[in-house]
Amino acid sequence: MPLKVALLGFGTVGASVARILNERASADLTLTHVFNRNVSRKRVDWLPGVTWTEDPEQIFASEADIIMELVGGLDPAGAWVRRALSSGKSVVTANKKLIAAQGIELEALARQHGVHLLYGAAVAGGIPVIPGLLSGLAGDRVVRLEGILNGTSNFILSRMEGGAEYADELAEAQRRGYAEADPTEDVDGFDARAKLVILSRLALGVNLSTEAITCQSIRQVGAIDFAYAKDLGCTIRPIARADVRGGGVLALVGPMLVPLSSPLAWSRGTENMVLLTGHYGGDVVFSGHGAGGNPTAVAVVSDLAAISAGAARRTPDAASASVTGEFELRHYVRFVVKDKPGIVAEIAGAMAAQGINIDSLFQRSGFGKDHLPFVVTTEPCVNSRLKLALSKIAGAGWMAEPPLDLQILEPEPAAVQ
Amino acid sequence: MPLKVALLGFGTVGASVARILNERASADLTLTHVFNRNVSRKRVDWLPGVTWTEDPEQIFASEADIIMELVGGLDPAGAWVRRALSSGKSVVTANKKLIAAQGIELEALARQHGVHLLYGAAVAGGIPVIPGLLSGLAGDRVVRLEGILNGTSNFILSRMEGGAEYADELAEAQRRGYAEADPTEDVDGFDARAKLVILSRLALGVNLSTEAITCQSIRQVGAIDFAYAKDLGCTIRPIARADVRGGGVLALVGPMLVPLSSPLAWSRGTENMVLLTGHYGGDVVFSGHGAGGNPTAVAVVSDLAAISAGAARRTPDAASASVTGEFELRHYVRFVVKDKPGIVAEIAGAMAAQGINIDSLFQRSGFGKDHLPFVVTTEPCVNSRLKLALSKIAGAGWMAEPPLDLQILEPEPAAVQ
Ligand SMILES: NC(=O)c1ccc[n+]([C@@H]2O[C@H](COP(=O)([O-])OP(=O)(O)OC[C@H]3O[C@@H](n4cnc5c(N)ncnc54)[C@H](OP(=O)(O)O)[C@@H]3O)[C@@H](O)[C@H]2O)c1
Ligand SMILES: NC(=O)c1ccc[n+]([C@@H]2O[C@H](COP(=O)([O-])OP(=O)(O)OC[C@H]3O[C@@H](n4cnc5c(N)ncnc54)[C@H](OP(=O)(O)O)[C@@H]3O)[C@@H](O)[C@H]2O)c1
Repeated sequence: MPLKVALLGFGTVGASVARILNERASADLTLTHVFNRNVSRKRVDWLPGVTWTEDPEQIFASEADIIMELVGGLDPAGAWVRRALSSGKSVVTANKKLIAAQGIELEALARQHGVHLLYGAAVAGGIPVIPGLLSGLAGDRVVRLEGILNGTSNFILSRMEGGAEYADELAEAQRRGYAEADPTEDVDGFDARAKLVILSRLALGVNLSTEAITCQSIRQVGAIDFAYAKDLGCTIRPIARADVRGGGVLALVGPMLVPLSSPLAWSRGTENMVLLTGHYGGDVVFSGHGAGGNPTAVAVVSDLAAISAGAARRTPDAASASVTGEFELRHYVRFVVKDKPGIVAEIAGAMAAQGINIDSLFQRSGFGKDHLPFVVTTEPCVNSRLKLALSKIAGAGWMAEPPLDLQILEPEPAAVQ
Repeated sequence: MPLKVALLGFGTVGASVARILNERASADLTLTHVFNRNVSRKRVDWLPGVTWTEDPEQIFASEADIIMELVGGLDPAGAWVRRALSSGKSVVTANKKLIAAQGIELEALARQHGVHLLYGAAVAGGIPVIPGLLSGLAGDRVVRLEGILNGTSNFILSRMEGGAEYADELAEAQRRGYAEADPTEDVDGFDARAKLVILSRLALGVNLSTEAITCQSIRQVGAIDFAYAKDLGCTIRPIARADVRGGGVLALVGPMLVPLSSPLAWSRGTENMVLLTGHYGGDVVFSGHGAGGNPTAVAVVSDLAAISAGAARRTPDAASASVTGEFELRHYVRFVVKDKPGIVAEIAGAMAAQGINIDSLFQRSGFGKDHLPFVVTTEPCVNSRLKLALSKIAGAGWMAEPPLDLQILEPEPAAVQ
């Protein structure tokens, strides 16, 4: 008997799911209902047996075994997912916002009703990170994760490598439909942060509070930073990282300097990439299309197939953990100054007062004295101390622009035997 | 109740598995027996509750729920796997040779006895390709796969990029313990071929006969070929590929020219990489440590965990398919000649007689006239026709070395929406 599935939300992902189910050779899944507001606009002729409805209650009361929530947002999607689970139906969703915010509670509800809640599409769309992790790395203990989890930001930054400025590449991303008119969610890191919360739970076994994770925007990165990064053997990518160290979890989202030797530096365009470091197995890299209707729909249909095959993955237990940015990390600080004697001494003094050692200080030629960019890199130091040092010199008359402070990602640990 | 597991073979992988099970926090799996020949040599003090035995029958008669076969080879490992399955025990193995040769039959036996046969460690060791594929890409239709499936060959070829010759890097690989005294299995492609057969079945749904797949050795590749490949925007990697086109399956193993823009060109050292192209989701890349005791053991323990969680993956149906090398592919042919007028005309004539168009012909300076390497690249042409053309000129007096014919891998298909 094929499982009956019903769809909430016939948008980009929902329509792709319907098409794949329609074209799918195996007869294990039957789409019975599609719900959407103003549903008459949505009706298509290639789904003949399907009931179209504007009433979500009709779905919950139906014989559907699995409900796909592809509406998005916290509300009303969250209420519908709860209704579905409470009605004894399994749920498959691509809703990262909802899972990041309420995943633990929703999974408990699913367990209570003996049904499944799967969300393989919520992180990195078409790349099977969540299933690969849950079923293929269950034998390891993952201690560190680094991801390029937002395709829009990666598109912008990886193209800036060619010398363009942020505004131009944002416009290009908007022209191509990769970025929305208001790009905040993507470029300021909030989208990646929700995914980082989900991945940290599944990979590292830690429940982090979304708001506790600092997001740094990519808006302040300039073409000049790529030139300086290159001098350091690096490039810049939008990174979401989490790292279990001792009792705490380092979790951060933002543009970071990435060594050119790291797989993260290879990732270009709208691609996503996730790098997981296992205690036993070392680094594993997953990459591919993190978004788009079809790739995301692949993840949704794979989750349906897992339920249908009776092989639904179970989420491992996770413990609450507190997030901290207070790890010793190397930093890149780019200043733009009105040049005059004594600036370096002032910066070095402010850093020394916080116990921070300068690793290198360098400057490209060809810039005017009144708007001179130069870079200081630090030895590993604690974030808050560097912030304090920078705040001490923030008001200096020679400061032409606020300094840009980026983390330098450590190289991957050495190969594991 | 924790599942009881027993181990056949306490070698590199077996010992790593025992250690991970021992250190594992969750109490879902208990190691009860270890079998090995001359087992007294193997006994360790950190496995206190375990029964050590030289008699495999003791294992089959035990209460073990799952038997791990980590002995390797077709015989007697195959017989033991059959005994285990027939005794109603699930089997987890890392034995690519056995699964490539007898996987279909063994899976049928497992089904017949209502038990599981998992072999996530048989391909690409610590990289969760098999579980990622089976559970995360079940919603797609994979149409093409390309892999770097042998770490030893990848180590040798990726280091030759620096200008060294094959023999030097083979010696280095042997010195580091990456290559055996007789490197045939690795460098001549047989190890990768077994993995390709397994992956083709799981990813493409085609059962290929191992012997039908041509293996080309990496022994003939020289430093000069890397120089010429670079001129073509490529490098050379040990590739195993399978591609469903129309009714047939293109399946080949050997060194190939890979565009520098391809993820396959990034893979260095003993790393493995698998690139799967889905009809809906586009390209997905997996990479990491393909071998070594711990990474391979992670895959074994993940398979145990899947059985223990009741979430064991099921292999999709696959159909027999015939292998052909007869696809239109671009080729790189490197000649080494004693230079004299008319050679190009002779080569071009032999190719034209087979309907093959030359795409480019070029030569680096700095070589002596009596041992002059130069390269011809062809437009897409059928393998056998090129072989025929090359055989026609094989006896020519100006031929100083047999020509080296390598495939040029097409760039990946364009991004999917
Ligand atoms: N698109 C991607 O690449 C991607 C990737 C990964 C995850 N996701 C996630 O997948 C989910 C769906 O994304 P999407 O891109 O498919 O969005 P979308 O194209 O906007 O589709 C959402 C659908 O839900 C309907 N809808 C929204 N609010 C509704 C309401 N209150 N009542 C009834 N129907 C409502 C919309 O109808 P209208 O047409 O009337 O607005 C639309 O048909 C989101 O959670 C998103 O985060 C998307
Ligand atoms: N090592 C890797 O990186 C790796 C990666 C992927 C897959 N694998 C696969 O994993 C399997 C095990 O590989 P391995 O590297 O662990 O090999 P290994 O170190 O040689 O271990 C094999 C063990 O089995 C024992 N054994 C062999 N033949 C036996 C027989 N007839 N009777 C009783 N015991 C016997 C050996 O005992 P002795 O000590 O007496 O020889 C040894 O302890 C193989 O199928 C291999 O292809 C290995």
